[in-house]
This record gives sequence, structure tokens and C-alpha cells, in this order.
Amino acid sequence: MATSELGRLLRLAGDVRIDFIDSPALRGNPLGDPSERPLPVYTPPGYDPQGSQRYPVLYVLHGYTGDAAALVAGRAWETNVVQWVDKLIVDGTMPPAILAVVDGFTRLGGSQYMNSIHNGDYATYVVRDVVGHLDANYRTVAREGGRAVLGKSSGGYGSLHLVMTQPGTFAAFASHSGDTNYRAACIRQFGDAQRVLERFDGDIGAFVTAFEAKPKRPFDEYSTMEMLGYAAAYSPRAAEAFAIDLPWDQKTGQVRDDVFARWLAYDPVEMCLTKRAEFARLRLSYVDCGRRDEYLGARILVERLRTMGLDVRHEEFEDDHKSIGYRYAVSLPALAAVLDREE
Amino acid sequence: MATSELGRLLRLAGDVRIDFIDSPALRGNPLGDPSERPLPVYTPPGYDPQGSQRYPVLYVLHGYTGDAAALVAGRAWETNVVQWVDKLIVDGTMPPAILAVVDGFTRLGGSQYMNSIHNGDYATYVVRDVVGHLDANYRTVAREGGRAVLGKSSGGYGSLHLVMTQPGTFAAFASHSGDTNYRAACIRQFGDAQRVLERFDGDIGAFVTAFEAKPKRPFDEYSTMEMLGYAAAYSPRAAEAFAIDLPWDQKTGQVRDDVFARWLAYDPVEMCLTKRAEFARLRLSYVDCGRRDEYLGARILVERLRTMGLDVRHEEFEDDHKSIGYRYAVSLPALAAVLDREE
Amino acid sequence: MATSELGRLLRLAGDVRIDFIDSPALRGNPLGDPSERPLPVYTPPGYDPQGSQRYPVLYVLHGYTGDAAALVAGRAWETNVVQWVDKLIVDGTMPPAILAVVDGFTRLGGSQYMNSIHNGDYATYVVRDVVGHLDANYRTVAREGGRAVLGKSSGGYGSLHLVMTQPGTFAAFASHSGDTNYRAACIRQFGDAQRVLERFDGDIGAFVTAFEAKPKRPFDEYSTMEMLGYAAAYSPRAAEAFAIDLPWDQKTGQVRDDVFARWLAYDPVEMCLTKRAEFARLRLSYVDCGRRDEYLGARILVERLRTMGLDVRHEEFEDDHKSIGYRYAVSLPALAAVLDREE
Amino acid sequence: MATSELGRLLRLAGDVRIDFIDSPALRGNPLGDPSERPLPVYTPPGYDPQGSQRYPVLYVLHGYTGDAAALVAGRAWETNVVQWVDKLIVDGTMPPAILAVVDGFTRLGGSQYMNSIHNGDYATYVVRDVVGHLDANYRTVAREGGRAVLGKSSGGYGSLHLVMTQPGTFAAFASHSGDTNYRAACIRQFGDAQRVLERFDGDIGAFVTAFEAKPKRPFDEYSTMEMLGYAAAYSPRAAEAFAIDLPWDQKTGQVRDDVFARWLAYDPVEMCLTKRAEFARLRLSYVDCGRRDEYLGARILVERLRTMGLDVRHEEFEDDHKSIGYRYAVSLPALAAVLDREE
Repeated sequence: MATSELGRLLRLAGDVRIDFIDSPALRGNPLGDPSERPLPVYTPPGYDPQGSQRYPVLYVLHGYTGDAAALVAGRAWETNVVQWVDKLIVDGTMPPAILAVVDGFTRLGGSQYMNSIHNGDYATYVVRDVVGHLDANYRTVAREGGRAVLGKSSGGYGSLHLVMTQPGTFAAFASHSGDTNYRAACIRQFGDAQRVLERFDGDIGAFVTAFEAKPKRPFDEYSTMEMLGYAAAYSPRAAEAFAIDLPWDQKTGQVRDDVFARWLAYDPVEMCLTKRAEFARLRLSYVDCGRRDEYLGARILVERLRTMGLDVRHEEFEDDHKSIGYRYAVSLPALAAVLDREE
Repeated sequence: MATSELGRLLRLAGDVRIDFIDSPALRGNPLGDPSERPLPVYTPPGYDPQGSQRYPVLYVLHGYTGDAAALVAGRAWETNVVQWVDKLIVDGTMPPAILAVVDGFTRLGGSQYMNSIHNGDYATYVVRDVVGHLDANYRTVAREGGRAVLGKSSGGYGSLHLVMTQPGTFAAFASHSGDTNYRAACIRQFGDAQRVLERFDGDIGAFVTAFEAKPKRPFDEYSTMEMLGYAAAYSPRAAEAFAIDLPWDQKTGQVRDDVFARWLAYDPVEMCLTKRAEFARLRLSYVDCGRRDEYLGARILVERLRTMGLDVRHEEFEDDHKSIGYRYAVSLPALAAVLDREE
Repeated sequence: MATSELGRLLRLAGDVRIDFIDSPALRGNPLGDPSERPLPVYTPPGYDPQGSQRYPVLYVLHGYTGDAAALVAGRAWETNVVQWVDKLIVDGTMPPAILAVVDGFTRLGGSQYMNSIHNGDYATYVVRDVVGHLDANYRTVAREGGRAVLGKSSGGYGSLHLVMTQPGTFAAFASHSGDTNYRAACIRQFGDAQRVLERFDGDIGAFVTAFEAKPKRPFDEYSTMEMLGYAAAYSPRAAEAFAIDLPWDQKTGQVRDDVFARWLAYDPVEMCLTKRAEFARLRLSYVDCGRRDEYLGARILVERLRTMGLDVRHEEFEDDHKSIGYRYAVSLPALAAVLDREE
Repeated sequence: MATSELGRLLRLAGDVRIDFIDSPALRGNPLGDPSERPLPVYTPPGYDPQGSQRYPVLYVLHGYTGDAAALVAGRAWETNVVQWVDKLIVDGTMPPAILAVVDGFTRLGGSQYMNSIHNGDYATYVVRDVVGHLDANYRTVAREGGRAVLGKSSGGYGSLHLVMTQPGTFAAFASHSGDTNYRAACIRQFGDAQRVLERFDGDIGAFVTAFEAKPKRPFDEYSTMEMLGYAAAYSPRAAEAFAIDLPWDQKTGQVRDDVFARWLAYDPVEMCLTKRAEFARLRLSYVDCGRRDEYLGARILVERLRTMGLDVRHEEFEDDHKSIGYRYAVSLPALAAVLDREE
């Protein structure tokens, strides 16, 4: 049984501890987010730091507005990702594995796990600093064949982005309800964001500062932050806080196609078209989405990958975007099954 | 005081009667909608069919899913457009005028007041058959200078469409919360419509038939009907019921740009660019939209018209898309003020 | 086919006209509502004012915030009660009958069809003035055996109230989702109403006046009006506008049991206990309610009636409180089947 | 700065650790909940287990469906109660204090912190086992004058319940949006719970078992669990799982006054009437509630206490029941200010 406080709180058979790493990739980032990040690491029952056994590592990425703390938080009647992996290992549904919880939060709500002149180099942070920490400090299978990446929503996006832009790091990925098909999914939010920003005369910094100071925040402001967070990842203008290009005109709300084209370049349904080789080297591509969610974006992505001759495991389920942690029960075993292990 | 039953029910100082016209433009339409249509006509206090005075006519167009019956329906604590015009005339806010309520309903929820090979020629029906009926049977100022057109939502769209495509009929228009900026406003609904149609294996006729048979209909089915109604107006394929092209792929939901381009060609923010002359001849262009609605589309339209050197009266108000009949109190007097009358 | 304008608008096979009656029972009512009321009357196909045939009459009562105009309003994709009765007669589901639409609106949103020193004598108005008008002007079966009363929500309540307090007028009733079981249904709204009234320092008249002046009204104000309307019916204080007792303390919101007892005295689940004879003389008692609505109140009522040895037709259906006009397809034929007719 | 993993994750200047205690009061409880409970304990900056300084302890109780884990969970853009106390101490708004997070969860969603033959003795658990653990293991001011209890929602209820039933333990309490005025607050939920239980033929155990097995649970089932949880606390029938009396008839939903009277006996607005002495010994009674929440219950409670000559600090604020952690910024300093400390 778990011996750490958090492990006991979560009633784990394995254990979890929270490491903290200072990431060179994030140092001095313009937005002023900390370079020191929490890095919760789950180890399965029987894990022995001094032993000879080596385990594959599943890297899990949180969604937009989330952080590492949220992913390891416990709550009655809920099962977090750490509890899921523990339960699946204990009941034999999947072989033992290490699970690392990556923190990709920024002041604008999330980094999309991308390198950005505005946010800092979050992709490098994951594949070099986080992965490096695991390989240096845990009994990992320290190679591509021993690693997978997964996540939900922006974490699903991040998984796709990292396998496309950082080939050789992960052998498999799972994207649950990942961001994609921006033309349908994003444009609808531009108007709402513009409406909110007008209250601040279009001053992004003023909005963010006011947002952070509020004890409780209205829904439309979260939605606005999300658009700013995306702009900081997809269309940064300079290495200076809030120096981002918005994909709409701040007077009329009209879509600015020049900026939006930069977003689309990072949209998985577009980006995948030039990434055949990166997908082809993977042992498993897993994509799912609820049918009351943006499931058509996932379909477009999957169809495009299959048209390129790639294998994809694709599932649709009857649910929306919220509280779908139970999908880990599908993806975690599927990922673990294809990874190397060393007894 | 009113002497007709409906006029008394609505407590009018003027009166209203419901004419019925059989429109040659709508006869034999592929969708099978009736060519006989109700045509409620409001006449102001003092109106005398035998007198010498002549009145301008305000043609009001209902929104999507609406019809002429809905526009004249009375209800406690509500004021319909007929009651508004009556009240504004009685209290002296506007001069006496006739108001005609145009019925543009179709089996798919609305015609957008356009000529369509699939629906029938609703634009012709309005400018020739409806206007012709008024001029033949009422003491109207029977010329462009004596007519204005207005409406809310799809009725606002229709007003814009008719002044752009049927120049010489109306001297002024008012678009309240009119459909426009489809790139932002419509794409979001494609996914919902696709989700609903999948339950019918993509068979549009099967969906519509099932929809019509239901005693009570879920919201997402209305939204689906709206997309079908738009397709029937903007991208009909043939003169046969349900022979319409949808602007998305019915397998993945991906936007079909070739079809969507046909929609955009009718989007006021696009269409206006070639209609400078049509707008320039108008005495009043009135556009408003609530700031919790698609107000940015209205802004884009207005900016484009102004960039062409045109005058537009533009208002934004703090409200959403629903129950905004009180905006008639602004538009009706403004329209009446610019029209000809003959004492 | 219909020859009246409204009848044609509603596409009736029979016809409908709107009479207007000046009700002695409502004259000089303290709230200042008109004593002249619209009274739409539907007559079936073949109805001949000069003929020898006589028809039973179904009296339909609208719900809270409704009025006679709302019940006869037409709207695409909707079927109003007049259209329902017409359709059911045409397709042979029920025998021909007259249907009269009773207007029971007040400035506070509704009368509950009760005699009240504050509102006026709405029960008397129905059973004497409205019924009297029908019997004097139409070919009715002018006796108890030729009349039924029905309605939805407050109209269902009114039906129950009238058969309990005005025995001998109606031979059958149908209550669709009628108000009852106030202990569960009403107390929840007291807090909301109190919250709204606090904005007006508890001044009921000030609130009502402000409410009436608004172009658009928020939901919680409707809910507040409903509590005021109930108080005007169940716990009036004097024959003076707004002289009503509220069943809660206007400082703390605490339930005032003395006032609430007066409400409960009119709650069908309580009142029925002393009205065995009044129910026993009926040919049909019909009660239904949706299972996503206050269906348990209906169950309590039905159980109490059955415990008294009375027959009740009771149905539950899978729906909520809104847009349940399709239930008329059940109640109208059931009522018509038990009424007298004279060929 | 914090040295524990959780303390670092929450970026505390003080620190937090999670103790686990095995409570004799909870052993062998009929519902089968664990007697071992997590007990997170926050210690302020400068806290020295070997030092001479002694601190007052603030005992915080979570709400219904919550648990100790939820109260210490971190999340971006959110501030939990541990972070609040730390921040308020660091910025000098309140003097240093220990904060203990009490876990009162049960299989039915919460214990209300009461002794119940069905759930176990949660009041004894708090005042004897939890308080005993703190006094034995931390440098506390180990007497009534050094302890306060507070919480939100059911935690607010628990605070009231404990000061009323366990006098001599706490010198002050704060109830944020605490459960009270059940006549208005609870009866509305009986119908919803009954509707849900009907799907299980009224079998409570079957419902709970199905609920626990679901990966995702609909809102109405939470609401049902809440009523069951209350019944287990207020109207248990026997020391056997699910042997509880419901305050409504499971056939008609009618309120069972005999059972509901047992609920009302524990309703703070009723119970307070016999607890003058228990309140009088307190140094601070703090009650608040949002004005879009059940604020009238709080008003009734406060008025009753004041009528008894007691001092109460009462606040209303413009918000609802959710995400009101910022109210701790008011209550925590107020409580800390009246407690003893030993330098």
C-alpha cells in the first residue's frame, strides 16, 4: 500500500510522490510563469528504486485551465488518472507502468504543450526536461519504445502536437476529446471573447490582470482566456507578455484570415497532412471523442490519417466533454500494451 | 376602435384584417408548401377605404420558424408588431401607416424570402404578389417611396436580401438582429445538424417527416431544420423536395467549401460588396443587434457599407436574440419618417 | 372549411369566432381589470346556427400568464387547442362539440378562476356569464350533462376548483398538470419572490408597476408575479389593489402558517377531502401530469379521491410542464364521449 | 516555505501534512465506511513542533459530497481553504493558527457531522477523536478558548450542530451558506428523489449500489443521494445499512410529517430555540449566505438568535451557493481574532 501522504489519501496500492523540477526550457519566459514545476510521479505496486525491473512511462497532460495539482486531486465519488492507472494495474487489466503528470499551465490558462516565443518552450520542457527527469530518477525504459503520451482536451491536443513535432520521444499516444478542427470549434468563441475584451477597451493585459484578481469568474471570461491562451501558443507576436495576435479584428470581430491561418497551421486536422512519417513510426495512435462533443473533428483527423495509410484506433462514445475520466480505462491499457518493459 | 375580431382581441385603435392571397410565384413549388398565404394587414385609426388619403406601407417579415400567424398572435404582457405600430401611431410617435405581415414559412421552417428552385420564388412573391395585393386593395402610396421592409432575425435577413436583389421596390429597410456573417454564425451549427441527421442515416426527408410527426421537438432538431432551411435557400440542388446540398460532409462533418461558398455568396457581409447602388438609392438603412447576440456580424456589415460611402443607422443594445420586439419602437418611426404620404 | 379570418389562418375544418362579453361578475373589480373579455368559440364542421342539432360544450381554461388570445394563437409547427379539437373531430376520434376559450387573465397574471374580493368573481364569471353566453347564443346542450371544463396548469387548477365549488355546472373535467400539493410546489418559490420584492422594499404595487413597464422581463419576476397572483386568489386582504397577504414574512422569508393555511384550504389535495359529493356527481374526472413535472401532487390527489371511493382516470407521461398540448388528444375525446348531445 | 510535497504543490508559506487517524467513534459503523480517516493539518510559518508557542486551531468541515481530499485539492485559478489561511496569515490579516481539515464523508455523501445509529458517531469523532489527535500531536491551545469550527453548506450545518450539541469544545463558529430552514429548502427535493428511486422500485440499496458503479452520474442522482444522506443523519431507523426512514411516502411522494418532524428537530432554525446557553458561551457566532442562495434561512436563524438576546455576526453577499471560498477571507480572521493563543 501507498506510504506517501498523497498516496494514502488516494488509497493507492502503488504510490505517488510529487517531484519538483526546475526546467531550463521555461526559465525567463516572457509571461513570467515559474520554471519550477510540480511533477507527480506514480509508481506501481512492487516498484523498487533499487530493483532491476524497468517500467514504461505514461506521460499524462492536463487540459486547458488544468494543472498537475488538479490531475492528482482526490474527491469522493471521483477517480483521477492516478487512481485509474493504479486500479487497472491492480485488477490486472494492464501491466505495471509508471505514470508522470506533466504541468503545462500558464498565466493564460495553458501552453498547449508547444514551444512559443511568448509562453516559453513547453514542448522542449516536456520531451527534454520532464522525460529527462524521469529517466534520470526512476527505473524507466529510457527510450522511445518505453514511452507514451496521453491527455484530454488540450492534453489530447498536446499529445498529438508532441508526436508530430518531437518524433522519437513517444511510441504511442492517446488523444481524448482533443482540440482540433478549429474552423468549426474556435470561430464561435471569437465573438464572445471580443465582447469581453471590449469591456477592457481591447486591452488584453488589463483583462488578464482583472481576471486574476477576481474571487469568482464568470464563464465567458474563461472562454476569453482560452482564446488568449490559444493565441499565445499559435500566433504570438513577440517575446513580451500579452504581445499576441488575435485572429479577429478588435473593432468588428471579423476573422483575420492571416492570423487564423497561423492557428490552422497547428490544427491537427491540417498539421497531420505533412506528418505521415511521424505517425507511421508510432505503435499506437488512439483518438476518441464523445458524440455530444466535437466528435466530427476527431472523425476528420482519423479519416485523414487513414487516407494516408495509417492505423488509428478511433472510438466515439455517448457523452460530452466533461468528466470523461473513465475513458482512461480504455486508453491506459491500450498504451501500456504496446510499450517495452524490462523484467 | 377596431371592429374586426382580431383587432378587438389585440385592443387596437386602428384595425387589422387577415387577407389571403394565392401567389403565382409560389404555385407548384417542389417542397409542396401552399401557394395561398395569409396576409394580415393593419390599417391605422382613421383609415378610410373610400377616402382620399394614401398611406405608406411597412412590410414586416417574420423570423425563422415563424409565420404570419405568429406575428399577429396576442399574448398577455407581450406586444406584437401590430400592437407596436398601433401604439406608436396613437401616441404620435410616428405618422399613420399601413403595416403588412408577410408569410414566408416553408416546410423547412422558412424561405429567407429568396427565390430558390427548391422552395419557390419567395422574393418574387413578396415584391410582386404581396406588394401588388396591397397596392390593389388598400389606399397605399403605390411606389418605392411609399414602402419599407423590416424584420427580425431571418426577417432582418430578408429585408436586406430584398433591398439588394429587388431594387426599386422599397425605399428603406430595418434589419433587427438579421442573419449575417455566416462564417462565424453558421459553422457552429453544422456539427449539431450532422449529429441529428446521423440518427436518420443522413436521410433529410426521413428526418423532416419524423420531425413533423412529433408532438414536441427537441431543441437540436430545430437547429437542424434551420440548417436545412438555409441550404434550401442558399444551396438547392434541384427542383425536388429535399434535393439540397449541405455545406458539410455527411460522413465527417467537414466543411464543404464549394457548397459553403454558395452560402457566403448570400451572406449580407459578402453580398453587400457588390450592391452599392442598391443601398445608395435607399432613404434609410437601419441595422441593429443585441450585444449578447451576433452583434459583430452587424458591425462588419455596417463598416463595409460605410466604407462604400453609404449612410447606415446602426444601434447596439444590451440584450440577446429573443423577445426584442421593443426594438420596433425605434425602427418603425424611423422608417415611417422617410416614406412618402399623400394627405 | 372555415370562413372567419382566424379560422382560415388556423386552417380549420370547423370555424372559430371571437365573441366579446361584458361580465357583470367582473365589473368594478378592485384590480382594475376589464370586465369585457374575449370569448373565442369554436364550432365544428356542419354546425348550423339555425339547425336543430345541439352540441356539448368543452370549456377550456388557460394557464397562469396566459389569456384567451394565447390559446387561439397560431404558430407553425404548433397545434393549439382549437386546432386539436378540430383535428380530432375531423378524423373521427371524437364526436362534434363546441369549444369555448375562457379568458381568466388579471393584472397579476391570472385569477385561478376563483371568486376573490381582490380580483373579482372569476368563478361566477365562468359558470354564469360565460356559460350563459354560450347557452344563449349557440346551439348547446344547455345543461350540466352537456358541459365539461378542462385546462392545463392553472387551467387544470381552475377546472378542479370549478367542479368542487360550482357543482351542477359541469359533468366532467380534465386537469392537465394542474396546480396542487402547494406545500411542495409553492414554498420553494417564496424565497425567490421575496428576493425580488426586496428590490422594491417589499412594495407590491411598485413591483407590479415596474414589471408592467418593462419591455422584457426576467424569469424570476414572472415567478414573483405568480406568487402574487396566487395570494390575490387564495389570501386577499381587502377589496383594494395589492391588498393581499403574503404567506411569508417580508423580512426573513419565514413561512407565515396563518396565511399559508388559507392557501392550503384551496389546494386540491386538501380541498378535495370535503368535496366527495361534488366529484361523485361527475361522469369523468381526468387527471394527468408529466413525470418530469409535479406528478406526485397529481398522485396524492388521485389517491385521495380513490380512497373516497371515486373513479378517476389518471395518467402519467414522460414529459415536463411545457408544450404538452398533445395531451388534449387524450382528454378532449374522453370528455366529449361522456357528454350529452342532441341530434 | 513548505517542505511537504502537498505544501509545495499548494505554494504555502506554512506547511500542510496529512495525518491519518483511526477513529474509535466510527469503528464498525453500519454503513461500512472506514474508521481510518485522513486529517490534513496546516501549520503556519514559524510553527515549531519543539517550540514553546501554542496556536489556536480552526477546524474546517467540508460540504455534502465533499471530503478532506477535496478541501486540500489544488487547482489553477482557485484558492482552497488551506491556501486561504496561509495567505491571510502571511499578509498579516490574521494571526498564526493551525487549521485542521475534518473528513466527514460517508457512503451516502456525508454525515452532517452528527451521531447517527445508521452512520456512526461523527459528532463524537470530531470533538473527541479529531480534536484529541490535534491536542496530542500539535502545539495547540488545548481548550475551548483555543478552538473554532467552520464550514460551508453541510460544513456550515455541522459547525452549528456541533456548537449546539457538543458545548465546551469550540469557542466560536462560522457557518457559510449552512443548511437550514428545511421546510423551504428540502421539501422541493423530495419529489426529485422519489422520481429517481422509482426507477429502482424504491429500493434504496439498489439505487446506491448502481450510483456507485456509474462512471458518471446525472445531477438528479446527486440530489437523491443528498436526501438519503440527510435521512441517514436525521431519521435513521436502525443500525443497518439503508435502514432509514424517508420523509415522504414512496408511492405518492406525500410528505410524511412524522418523519419530517425528526428532520425539523435538527433544523438549526428549530433546534436553536432550545440552545440559548450553548450559543451564549460562544465568543463569536458568524453566519453568512449569498443572496442568490437560501439566504432567508440564515436570516430566520439569525433573527431567532438575536431575539434570544444573542450576538451574531451576519452577512449577506451577492452570490449563489457555489465557489464561495473567498468568504473564508472574512470568517477565518474573525474566528482567529477571538481565540486564545500562547506565545
